[in-house]
Amino acid sequence: MKSISFNAAEIMQSMSEEEIAAWRKITEEALENLHLSKGKGSEWLGWLRLPTTTTEGDLDEIEHAAAVLREQCKVIVVVGIGGSYLGAKAVIDGINHHFDNLLNRNGNPLILYAGNNLSEDYLADLTEILQGISFGIISISKSGTTTEPAVSFRILKKMLEASIGVTQARERIITITDARNGALRTMTEREGYRSFAIPGNVGGRFSVFTPVGLLPIAAAGINIRELMSGAKSMALRLGKTVGFEDNIALQYAAVRNHLYRSGKKTEILANFEPRLHYIAEWWKQLYGESEGKDGKGIFPASVDLTTDLHSMGQWIQQGERSIFETVISIERPAKRVLIPKDKNDLDGMNFIAGKRISDVNRMAELGTRLAHVDGGVPVINISLPALTPYYIGQLLFFFEKACAISGYILDVNPFDQPGVEAYKNNMFALLNKPGYETEAEIIKKRLAQ
Amino acid sequence: MKSISFNAAEIMQSMSEEEIAAWRKITEEALENLHLSKGKGSEWLGWLRLPTTTTEGDLDEIEHAAAVLREQCKVIVVVGIGGSYLGAKAVIDGINHHFDNLLNRNGNPLILYAGNNLSEDYLADLTEILQGISFGIISISKSGTTTEPAVSFRILKKMLEASIGVTQARERIITITDARNGALRTMTEREGYRSFAIPGNVGGRFSVFTPVGLLPIAAAGINIRELMSGAKSMALRLGKTVGFEDNIALQYAAVRNHLYRSGKKTEILANFEPRLHYIAEWWKQLYGESEGKDGKGIFPASVDLTTDLHSMGQWIQQGERSIFETVISIERPAKRVLIPKDKNDLDGMNFIAGKRISDVNRMAELGTRLAHVDGGVPVINISLPALTPYYIGQLLFFFEKACAISGYILDVNPFDQPGVEAYKNNMFALLNKPGYETEAEIIKKRLAQ
Repeated sequence: MKSISFNAAEIMQSMSEEEIAAWRKITEEALENLHLSKGKGSEWLGWLRLPTTTTEGDLDEIEHAAAVLREQCKVIVVVGIGGSYLGAKAVIDGINHHFDNLLNRNGNPLILYAGNNLSEDYLADLTEILQGISFGIISISKSGTTTEPAVSFRILKKMLEASIGVTQARERIITITDARNGALRTMTEREGYRSFAIPGNVGGRFSVFTPVGLLPIAAAGINIRELMSGAKSMALRLGKTVGFEDNIALQYAAVRNHLYRSGKKTEILANFEPRLHYIAEWWKQLYGESEGKDGKGIFPASVDLTTDLHSMGQWIQQGERSIFETVISIERPAKRVLIPKDKNDLDGMNFIAGKRISDVNRMAELGTRLAHVDGGVPVINISLPALTPYYIGQLLFFFEKACAISGYILDVNPFDQPGVEAYKNNMFALLNKPGYETEAEIIKKRLAQ
Repeated sequence: MKSISFNAAEIMQSMSEEEIAAWRKITEEALENLHLSKGKGSEWLGWLRLPTTTTEGDLDEIEHAAAVLREQCKVIVVVGIGGSYLGAKAVIDGINHHFDNLLNRNGNPLILYAGNNLSEDYLADLTEILQGISFGIISISKSGTTTEPAVSFRILKKMLEASIGVTQARERIITITDARNGALRTMTEREGYRSFAIPGNVGGRFSVFTPVGLLPIAAAGINIRELMSGAKSMALRLGKTVGFEDNIALQYAAVRNHLYRSGKKTEILANFEPRLHYIAEWWKQLYGESEGKDGKGIFPASVDLTTDLHSMGQWIQQGERSIFETVISIERPAKRVLIPKDKNDLDGMNFIAGKRISDVNRMAELGTRLAHVDGGVPVINISLPALTPYYIGQLLFFFEKACAISGYILDVNPFDQPGVEAYKNNMFALLNKPGYETEAEIIKKRLAQ
């Protein structure tokens, strides 16, 4: 089986032998601390062993639940925010047809998302298109009291119950939540919903290989065994005994921190295939939330190319020299389109007639890499042989492992997110949530000034 | 008629009287230079007068062409990249139903996009879903030889001709290109396509109020008279005699450059309504391409909230203090959804039962603003009374005018984009395009090393 490849050779060649030796030592220590649970946030390391410990039985159970929903539903609404939807959407969008919404679906349910915003118009529009459609819900929340998904789930659940009755609705709702505690667990027990547990030692942004990611992905009709098999192959390749020279997670973590220390404060994740858009969104949460704390952290940004070469391309080529770029390549497209010859050649495109569009895209990518390096933008490359569940599994686990190492290099706890509470506390105070009386008084005084 | 409002009071209050006076002088001079065509790139100022000089007759003509397409087509494919599609998509997505693709359309054609990437799978998927559908094409390119749109147009044109015949296909293709020169103009004349001219003195990213933006927007069924009326009202409000105290374009340009000079190197455009996503993408091209040159320029990034408070929120709250935020608010949603009461209240949401979702969203927004200010992130606010063509027209023209002023403050030419050629030149050399023989030899030697 082939594997994804990682290439930062140009950047590493620019480093001295002493620098390389120092990075080898730093990253190998971080790897050891990670595997020995000696680093920061070590109560959150469940994700590390998911690819090697998830059993066939676990996958059977997820696939069975997915099949039950798939049989009954034309649309499945995934209710969740942040890590509760980004992993699933990244994989689903990565595999699905570009115009999935418009396809004649042949029984494959459409996956839609809710609970990931507080737009009144969004929920109005969603409930409008669900009218008269047989839909189901996968409700994902560790606590069940996160405002965005809780509000959406309350509304969608009532709509489903009103449409097909409470008893039938129970067959079309699956929850993914804490194994024992929390509002959604209590509701699950009381209603008798089918349910999966979020492991207590896995944080949201590291949860794609738990039922949080796997159930929606399976519900979309994507092979989760291939995905997990890819993740497992990558877990073995990045194992605790694999040193810096062979360990691409250590190399990526080292290179990005080396660049960061030299003033490259923003990393742009770039792709040349639009279906990778949400893999970049997932990556932004993974790295932004893991590293952006204590006044530190690379700012994670993303572009879809060649699309955005005609928007952000100018800035990347000639703006402040404070960025580096990580490009995800896809070596082989799934489909085949040739550029036709035209006898008049008014558009002057006959010089590429007979080529595949991907041949042109590959040259655009190579041309961009050379141009950006010339423009003072270091470029890292990650290449997937093809856009399949197996290679996406490899890619996501690679990013997770490298992120943990990178956070340790930065000397932050890569597994907490204390800053996310700040807006919630203000919002709860402003909404007079019980228990926030003191905060409410303070914030109202502040606003009155 | 109400108007959008701009608020940077907190940041301006932190500036000294001398600083304010200096910014007044700088921005008013820039405004004068702009209107007297004395600044850099003054051959590109056609956009400045579009809102006040576009006639009813111009709009009649665009609406008539749009109506002809609308009558014949279930899908209209807009072929263009960068400024040739972003303005139209920003407005169309800003107004349309969130699940526009899934609606029973009642005769309103669906707008799809092509020529904005080089993905082989994307074009294969697009042509697959267009099989058997009555579709039309709006082909937008100043030259007609930009690779991405030229390749897509060649393929879609052949598909349409094969499907309904060359003569019929001519009725379903409209081009928007240079008035006299270029490949697409020549093809237009030879085929007898209906066509509109891109004014010679308007660059791509400033072209939303030309037929480039207006025709696709009208084809989507959106009122372009309201859009232009909003733009006109804003043009008058930001006119050449309107000084700093009343001119919000000057204020925005001043504040963002003040922040930039104090080390805030990244501006994050944030919204709390998902339909604004592509307005942020349009804005990123406008500011990124106008300012990112000569090793300078604020890095433009964007987030959709509250969605991304659960991904980028941690970084924004506690990462490097090198950012500021510009939040676009929508005061009144279009639709109405109340949060229902639940007698068991297992999710603990009864404290907001009976409220509109937008009430909660508004408190999330206020809570976020306070949290970010507390976290050391200066926040600018731009507020739209509602998400309508009129206010979007105001917003887009506001951003254009402020961008020109901001570019002059930065002392760059805000109307060129020399860096965009770099990847194209490499790509053409790699693809052996006639005329690139020397470059081809050089680049092949380089790669052989």
